[in-house]
Amino acid sequence: MKNLLFLGGLGFIGTNIINELLDKYSELEITVFDKPGKVNSFGSRIRFFPGDFQNEISVENALSSASFDGVVHLVSTTIPATSNEKIAFDIEANLVPTVRLLQLMVKHEVPDIIFFSSGGSVYGTVNSKTVNELDQTFPISSHGTVKLAIEKYLHLFQELYGISYLILRVGNPYGPFQTSDDQGIINVFIRKILKNEKLVIRGDGSAIRDYIYVKDLARIVGQMIDNKITNNIVNIGSGTGTSVNEILDILRSVSGKELRTKFTDPLPADVSRIVLDISKLKLLVKSELVPIGEGIRLTYEHMLSEALNKDNFKR
Amino acid sequence: MKNLLFLGGLGFIGTNIINELLDKYSELEITVFDKPGKVNSFGSRIRFFPGDFQNEISVENALSSASFDGVVHLVSTTIPATSNEKIAFDIEANLVPTVRLLQLMVKHEVPDIIFFSSGGSVYGTVNSKTVNELDQTFPISSHGTVKLAIEKYLHLFQELYGISYLILRVGNPYGPFQTSDDQGIINVFIRKILKNEKLVIRGDGSAIRDYIYVKDLARIVGQMIDNKITNNIVNIGSGTGTSVNEILDILRSVSGKELRTKFTDPLPADVSRIVLDISKLKLLVKSELVPIGEGIRLTYEHMLSEALNKDNFKR
Repeated sequence: MKNLLFLGGLGFIGTNIINELLDKYSELEITVFDKPGKVNSFGSRIRFFPGDFQNEISVENALSSASFDGVVHLVSTTIPATSNEKIAFDIEANLVPTVRLLQLMVKHEVPDIIFFSSGGSVYGTVNSKTVNELDQTFPISSHGTVKLAIEKYLHLFQELYGISYLILRVGNPYGPFQTSDDQGIINVFIRKILKNEKLVIRGDGSAIRDYIYVKDLARIVGQMIDNKITNNIVNIGSGTGTSVNEILDILRSVSGKELRTKFTDPLPADVSRIVLDISKLKLLVKSELVPIGEGIRLTYEHMLSEALNKDNFKR
Repeated sequence: MKNLLFLGGLGFIGTNIINELLDKYSELEITVFDKPGKVNSFGSRIRFFPGDFQNEISVENALSSASFDGVVHLVSTTIPATSNEKIAFDIEANLVPTVRLLQLMVKHEVPDIIFFSSGGSVYGTVNSKTVNELDQTFPISSHGTVKLAIEKYLHLFQELYGISYLILRVGNPYGPFQTSDDQGIINVFIRKILKNEKLVIRGDGSAIRDYIYVKDLARIVGQMIDNKITNNIVNIGSGTGTSVNEILDILRSVSGKELRTKFTDPLPADVSRIVLDISKLKLLVKSELVPIGEGIRLTYEHMLSEALNKDNFKR
């Protein structure tokens, strides 16, 4: 693949992947389609196409603006925790436009798509130690259900029209450039620690997730593009579970601060434990992963230096 | 369950099930919500509520018109063969209104839903002899994908709000009261034979499906309601495969006619073989099934007598 179109490429994951690709795969041409308000920190190293994913004409304009070899689909307008409050919106804002995108890819002969699914939400309530890509999928959030429905349509378009897909079921990524206040517990906590604010934990802190340092994720995605891995569903995580309480311990040690915490009721859409089986990932790409203690330290330092710079700028 | 609301109850499957229920379970009260144009052949034995499934207010009016114990959801506005031509419509006309229905069931405290999924289309391309309910699902039609997405939302509403579900993955039903010209190959063929028209076969006639006589289906559904089977996904078919060519042979023998046939290209959404594993069904209900030769003969006689009556009426 030479010429890639990133949909929603200026967000947290997109920014990290594009950084990685620009650094290591200089032959790639990258176009980003994202909301008009988004800041393009890559400047002229990419082509920026502002537009609205829900507007079919806007997507078609971007898709037909060059001869793309592939699309990287990172758009998601909901998060698991709150998606159940607006299911019809979730379907209409994510599923329907993705189907339209696939139809446009057929029309404009774009042969490949990489889709960011959700390792944390497609499997649902899990009793086993880890989940692999063949396990049953019963999401308990609309976010996960829509991701899963998109996966099914990707497979359908592959069988019917030959569009190749790579579905990445990503665990909980954390690291530089995560700016959301609603999602990404590690980044949200660090931001609060830097402002000396109280950390709010849904549940008792025992909930276990599979966290992945976003630069590891970016490197893996780069390798997968480079190795032309297609028509596959792949879990991307660390393969190990970490509880919220363990994260709090790491953050205490990294920041050297006492943390102020508040524990509240968990949401029904929160699963209690999800750890990804990454055997397939290990077969497909060779990649050393940053341990979570180290990843959190790097993230903390990055965010601290950003905060200090901002502070200096203000003065 | 005492008081049931049938959505789309005046179609082929609904008519047969309601017939069965009115005959054998006389304590049941049945309300049918269906399109205003539909003929209510049950008269005052049921309550008929004309309305549009895509209109939320219309659905809410029906759902709140009595204290229902359960909903039987039979609405489907697409068929596998042509659903891929209008995927966005399929999602908006079937998935979104079903999610709205579930939200209304939560609001009006209707505790139970029976959903007619599709054994023929949710599994997709299958290499194994038969498919069971735990097998992988990769539909190759939007019809099947939407059915599957609805299944996932049913599970979600069960986990989050306690709405019980029964998902019936029905094979290819045939028998009395099937009037579609687009779907139900056995009925379509018989209608054409009775009019001395040519039978059009997509493909070479080797495609294998799992056919079930609709009166068997109706009896099974009655037993499942009676036995209060919930929170389950169940294949309903015969467990045996029949090719189109075998159906043609049976029809030749039953009608005593030479058949005029025309073979055309198959559609991409047609799977070549699908036979349901009905082990779970057999554990849940005891039911003798009508063999396909006998079922086709009964259907032929029913349709022949209907055609003769219509003819007599005309004179």
